[in-house]
Amino acid sequence: MFENIEKENEQVDIVVIANSTDPLLDMTFFYVTRLEVGRFEGSVAVLHPDGEVHVITSLLEAESASRGDFNLHVFKTLDELNEITGELLKGKKKIGINGDELTYRMHNFIKKHADDDAETIDISKAVKTTRMVKDEAEIKTLKKACDIASEVAEHMIDFVKPGMKEYEAAAELSYQMLKRGASGNSFETIMAFGKNSAEPHYSAGDVVLEKGQFVLMDFGALYKRYCSDITRTYVCGPMSEKHRKIYETVAEAQRLALETIKVGESCAKPHNVAAEYIDSTEFKGLFTHGLGHGLGLAVHDGGGLHPRAADTIMEEGMVFTVEPGIYVPGFGGVRIEDDIVVRKDGPELLTSARRDLVEI
Amino acid sequence: MFENIEKENEQVDIVVIANSTDPLLDMTFFYVTRLEVGRFEGSVAVLHPDGEVHVITSLLEAESASRGDFNLHVFKTLDELNEITGELLKGKKKIGINGDELTYRMHNFIKKHADDDAETIDISKAVKTTRMVKDEAEIKTLKKACDIASEVAEHMIDFVKPGMKEYEAAAELSYQMLKRGASGNSFETIMAFGKNSAEPHYSAGDVVLEKGQFVLMDFGALYKRYCSDITRTYVCGPMSEKHRKIYETVAEAQRLALETIKVGESCAKPHNVAAEYIDSTEFKGLFTHGLGHGLGLAVHDGGGLHPRAADTIMEEGMVFTVEPGIYVPGFGGVRIEDDIVVRKDGPELLTSARRDLVEI
Repeated sequence: MFENIEKENEQVDIVVIANSTDPLLDMTFFYVTRLEVGRFEGSVAVLHPDGEVHVITSLLEAESASRGDFNLHVFKTLDELNEITGELLKGKKKIGINGDELTYRMHNFIKKHADDDAETIDISKAVKTTRMVKDEAEIKTLKKACDIASEVAEHMIDFVKPGMKEYEAAAELSYQMLKRGASGNSFETIMAFGKNSAEPHYSAGDVVLEKGQFVLMDFGALYKRYCSDITRTYVCGPMSEKHRKIYETVAEAQRLALETIKVGESCAKPHNVAAEYIDSTEFKGLFTHGLGHGLGLAVHDGGGLHPRAADTIMEEGMVFTVEPGIYVPGFGGVRIEDDIVVRKDGPELLTSARRDLVEI
Repeated sequence: MFENIEKENEQVDIVVIANSTDPLLDMTFFYVTRLEVGRFEGSVAVLHPDGEVHVITSLLEAESASRGDFNLHVFKTLDELNEITGELLKGKKKIGINGDELTYRMHNFIKKHADDDAETIDISKAVKTTRMVKDEAEIKTLKKACDIASEVAEHMIDFVKPGMKEYEAAAELSYQMLKRGASGNSFETIMAFGKNSAEPHYSAGDVVLEKGQFVLMDFGALYKRYCSDITRTYVCGPMSEKHRKIYETVAEAQRLALETIKVGESCAKPHNVAAEYIDSTEFKGLFTHGLGHGLGLAVHDGGGLHPRAADTIMEEGMVFTVEPGIYVPGFGGVRIEDDIVVRKDGPELLTSARRDLVEI
């Protein structure tokens, strides 16, 4: 973390990570504490350049917090919270904060307890850069989250039937992930039948599946706080030539994008390759979002594979989704999404569900 | 909203509500837009005193946003986002912000697009006060979220068996909520067997249920973005005298607390009554948290029933959890939690699962 802060030409005495109430939590708190259990609303982590970590938490989380490897400060009253925080910030003039995941209120809390002449410095770019590169322990956890999602994606091929409602299929999907050890969904499942599949951010309604429709499912498992994110699009037969053409165009775009992923490549390259390919077909202009996003403790974990990331160079251990799509309004859409780790010579796939065109 | 801002002696020209990336969303965005579907990361709502609402969102959410009743501005590029935002903030000198749910980054975004001499004013207290009082449409949605949770709480009585693991029971619970139309869990389910039930913020592990243990389940359904939150504690028989004593003490504390809830009462009263009762028994000091919290679009929706809320007077339409508990370290704990609406003459219960001592 402090190494990346220096690279950004910033200098701080300490970094303060502060959670507000759920869901306004800074996942960096869990990145630095590695705490797998507990909610930790209102908890604070103070990081020192020498690696020392202090955590302030309420009595309610004391048992969960005791599992961590850091200096633990437990408060019983708000007065105690104020006292402990003041003590830890005393004499620190340059306080790094993660502006991307800190609320305005908790920023005021930090300011209030810091010395009058202290200043806060937004080091969110360094936090993002740090979290973007995963170590092997994190990748192992992500792999497990991806394994759960991959198994369930294949399970759904046999489960989904014409006449079923979107939310019923979404329920089965969540259940199967939980049964395999997920602690929850990493985001609200998209289960889109027919023309709903043309809406990239749909969720799931009470629409009934009919023959000849796309079945697009975009979902992920939460496992030890880490997120997987996978999309599979099946066709509820009979399949038409149009279904096949859209699917194969997206599959080819994904294949071409994956080929460009390796250490040293620009993060814009895979997107550009996929978009250029789709725009060379009859589906020109129908790939309407970025190719992928970072994945980790958050489902949008910082960084991504899109034109705006042209200046970011891929490093070993970065984890991204790769998810081209084509959306034909009024008809339906196809998205194929896999999760990968950037490696020296190419991407390591974390998701493994079959990617061929499946008729259900 | 503006009425409550005035009551706080603040004056603003507009209020700007801005979402960051998931999960750092301001649920107030959904409160003012009433949008039930869509993710709306990075979306902005601008509220005028005359009730006019403007929403800025990306092309990705255009279809979801078109379901709302407001002035919609869709941007395709970041330049367009900047231009639209600047246009809407032009000439506004006093900009209200919701500091409790706004990130530091999005605050900077607002500052950047406002006039140079504009100031932001944190009106989160007024936002909280506004959202605390639910209208009948909101209560109807909350009731549905509570009905789902109540049905599932009773379903679990037959489902949970000795030999089952915590996460298996948690999976069934989520599945049953989704099958009944929930879009997800309103927070991570707590399914705690035996001594784990003494840890108020436990989640669910691979601990196996044995005879003679408490089974504490604390969970809620998300329905059209509204949250329910219920806790039931059962005993996996045979039941001991100690199980019964703890349970009945908590049940009595809840009964006494509910009796004090009505329009005009202090929000500290129900907590104090419950705590005093528990402290008059052999379980003195073992009720270690507040009695309840506000419930709505967030599971901690602002306000609560605890000593710090002594100055808040109950109003018709406020929704709270009422959840006394006793936690005996090393043995186990009991919590009984129901959701209520404050009414003129007493609480209206939203949750309805049986509350007697059940042996499973």
